[in-house]
This record gives sequence, structure tokens and C-alpha cells, in this order.
Amino acid sequence: MKRRRFLSTLAVGTTLPVLGPFAARDALRSREQTASDRARAVRVLAFDTFGTVVDWRSSVIAEGQQLGKTKGLSVDWAAFADAWRAGYGPSMNRVRKGDLPWTKLDVLHRTTLDGLLTKFNVDGLSEDEKVRFNRVWHRLRPWPDSVDGLKQLRARFVLTPLSNGNISLLTNMAKHAQLPWDCILSAEVVRHYKPDPETYLMVADIFDLKPSEVMMVAAHQGDLDAAQKLGLKTAYVHRPLEYGPGKASVPPPAGRFDFVAKDFRDLAAQLGT
Amino acid sequence: MKRRRFLSTLAVGTTLPVLGPFAARDALRSREQTASDRARAVRVLAFDTFGTVVDWRSSVIAEGQQLGKTKGLSVDWAAFADAWRAGYGPSMNRVRKGDLPWTKLDVLHRTTLDGLLTKFNVDGLSEDEKVRFNRVWHRLRPWPDSVDGLKQLRARFVLTPLSNGNISLLTNMAKHAQLPWDCILSAEVVRHYKPDPETYLMVADIFDLKPSEVMMVAAHQGDLDAAQKLGLKTAYVHRPLEYGPGKASVPPPAGRFDFVAKDFRDLAAQLGT
Repeated sequence: MKRRRFLSTLAVGTTLPVLGPFAARDALRSREQTASDRARAVRVLAFDTFGTVVDWRSSVIAEGQQLGKTKGLSVDWAAFADAWRAGYGPSMNRVRKGDLPWTKLDVLHRTTLDGLLTKFNVDGLSEDEKVRFNRVWHRLRPWPDSVDGLKQLRARFVLTPLSNGNISLLTNMAKHAQLPWDCILSAEVVRHYKPDPETYLMVADIFDLKPSEVMMVAAHQGDLDAAQKLGLKTAYVHRPLEYGPGKASVPPPAGRFDFVAKDFRDLAAQLGT
Repeated sequence: MKRRRFLSTLAVGTTLPVLGPFAARDALRSREQTASDRARAVRVLAFDTFGTVVDWRSSVIAEGQQLGKTKGLSVDWAAFADAWRAGYGPSMNRVRKGDLPWTKLDVLHRTTLDGLLTKFNVDGLSEDEKVRFNRVWHRLRPWPDSVDGLKQLRARFVLTPLSNGNISLLTNMAKHAQLPWDCILSAEVVRHYKPDPETYLMVADIFDLKPSEVMMVAAHQGDLDAAQKLGLKTAYVHRPLEYGPGKASVPPPAGRFDFVAKDFRDLAAQLGT
């Protein structure tokens, strides 16, 4: 059911009516031109990272299991990963609301980690081991299509992350996962976490562009809604496994964002790169 | 004479005394260990760009000549390039001293360009042509060793520009010249032009390092002096053609900086990458 609904929302090439080869070709061509028009003025693609480019959940679980094996721990690492991620929004909101001064995501992650180590009864980690485990967020693995898709898109656009991850986290992540960014932009540059407007508007400001010449790419509708309100173009990329099997969110209806794509290769195809 | 003096200052591998193969090998090994020790704690290499990574002078001359041909202009483009570069320091000093609010280098370059177009009697450029010519600084060509040397160094270190060029300038330059940076750091991030301390100290702050775990790489001793005073490691790279033929600066004496290299490949060899 979810799958069927998802397919019906895809913008290009998957649900062409059966009208013979020429009609189908013309319909496809017409849709491609429309897609190309919508992106013609776009110069920079700005990507959400956690969940959109990299698979945080399976990466945290895998490193947790490895740590558990080494240290003889018995922990539900899937629950641990989900709880760590669940602390992400609330911890940033403390900064966004002014309860905390500007604080890097690494430090927020560590505060959440310390609470979870207690909650999950994890004893016996040295400070070095905690520091290393906290930096699992620097070593997240890309989705299978991420690197190839970004390489295709890079031929036509400037590519940057636009993430709440701090600059060193995003830089190490890119080095580890071989993500071919053209630069690294982070909430840390303007010291405002998404969805604060400053973060989205920074990209246009830095590149001397109008907001509509920047396109936000994300797997999360809230991120795209905030970008869209400020005049950025938007591309939704579906990541059905972000929260684990059987927990796919429902993709947005056609027309809700400028592009709706199955993955980065599909986005590259829709953008004609 | 200059060449001889330069060679005598090189740290490694060029002036080994002739004591037979084993003595030479041991001396070399011992010096390499020393060099390796000096860089052991370094995690990030931060590069000056104009003159150090890219050859601004020949690039500006070449584009000026092309523009002159198209527009039928008769201009001494070498003098023009030198005058444009000569306006660089004074224009940034106006920002550093507070005479101007924070202003991107693109805008400072444009102000200098407008003055030079008058001074060199260049008429008849449209606004689009001026905008395009001003962005020649986004399209500077790398020195012949830059890309290969950076690729070697990237295997062991995080590489970033640390330049007064704005982020879009450095990003476009990297895309154009295929410079394999891991991230793009610029004076624009902290809104302080080098040699203000904030710019150098930003790198350690962003990567949670001590200043001594960051090494500044530059062809200009003033840049390295400022970095050294703040505790950064320093590597001088000789660029004898930066200001044109016959205008090479005298390299620093051995020991003045942590490393003195002929080019980026030599620096990579000295650092054992």
C-alpha cells in the first residue's frame, strides 16, 4: 500500500500511461522539460545529511554491536540508536530557545550519550572509549546510491551539506564515506540550528544567489517545509529504511515539493545530469 | 645565487654529504624521523591559496589578454594583474581596521578593479563583463604540482584552504582547478582577514585540536609568522614565479619554520605521505 502510493507520487518516468511508444515518449519528454525548467536557475544543491545522505541507524547499531562484543556488553543497540537519535531534536531545541549558548552537535551528542549509558546500564567504558563511540556520527555510512548520485549531480551543481552536524563531523564523514562535496556548510557557520531561517538563507548569501537558486534536498518534510517558506527550491528523497524495516514514512503528494525522488540517482536523472 | 641559497635551506634529501651509501641512507633516515616527529601530532593542513596553491598572476594575465582580444583593448595585463594584487592588502586592511564593515573579498576585488579600469583607460566593458572578469579570482590555475601534492597529503591529513578568499570564491576555485579539499575554511567564516588571530585559531577550534595540531602551509613568511606566534606548526613552500620571472623571494633559513619545501610534492615527501 505504502509502496503503491509512493510510486504514484514520483514525478518522472515510472507511471506513464500506456498510449503506445510515441505518446509515452512525448509525455516523458514533456515531463522532463518541465523538470528541467523547474531546476534551470538552481546553482547549489544543499543536502540534509543524517538520514538523507547517510544511514545513521545501521551505522550506530553496527558500531554499538562491535563495542558490545569487545567490552562484553549486552545491549539492545537498535533501541540505543533510536534513543540517541530521539535526543537530537530536543537537545538542539535547548540551543535554539536560548537555554544553552551555541553548542556543537558533538557536545550535544555526548550529553545524550552519557544519559543513555546510564539508562542502558552500560558500565566500564573508559573516557577514550566514550569519546570514540560519540564520534560514530563522524563515521556514518552512506546509502548505497549516495556517492554515485552525488558524483552525477556534481557535474552540474555546487554540492554542499546543509546539516546540523558540526563542520568537523561533516568533514570527517565526507572523508570516511567519500562524499564528493564542493564545500562543507553547517549550522555551525551561522551558529543556528535548522529549522532556524539563518541556516537555510546562509547558502544564498554565501554564493550571492537568490534563495530560489538554491535547492534543499532532504528525506524529511519538515526540513523542506522550512526551506520552501524561505523561497528555496525543494527536493524530497525517500529513505524508507531510515528508522528501520517497516517504518517507512509516507512520501509527500506530487506537487508538494519541486522534486520527489526515489534516491539520488533518480534525482540526478530528473535533473537531467 | 638565489638558487644555491635556496637549496641549502631545504630540510631533507637535497644536500646530503657524500659519505657512502650507508652513511647517506642513515643520515636520510634520521632526518626523515625528525621530520616525521615534527609533524606527528598534526591532523589538519591549512593552506594559504593565492600564490601558494594557485598562480594568480599568470591566470589574471591570461584572462585579461583574452578579454583584451575580444574587446579590442590595448593594456599591459601584467602591470594590471600586479596592480590588482597590490590593492589586495590595503583593501583588507580597511576592514581589519574597522574603516569598512565585514566585506567579502569579491567586493573588495571589484572596488579595486573599478579603479584600475579607469587608471588603465579600459572603456566599454558592460556590467556583465566586469562581473565576469572580477570572478577570474574564482578561476585561478593551480601550480603544476598542486593537485598531485594535495592528493598525496590528503591520505594522511585533513586538508583545507585557510584563505582571505570568500567561501564561494574558494569553492568555485576548487571545482575549477580540481583541488581535493576536505572542507572550505575562509576568513569569511569568522569575518576576520588574515593576519587577524581569529582566522588562524578557527581551525583548531572547529576540529577540537590544539593549535600545534594544525599546520599552516604558505609561500609567504608573514602568513607563517602570524600562525607561528599563535602556536600553529608552519610549512613554507617556495613559489619563485608568483610575482613573475626574476622576482623570486629569498626562502627562509633552515629552522625558521617547521618545514621548508620546494613544492607540494616535496612537502608530501618530507611528511612521509
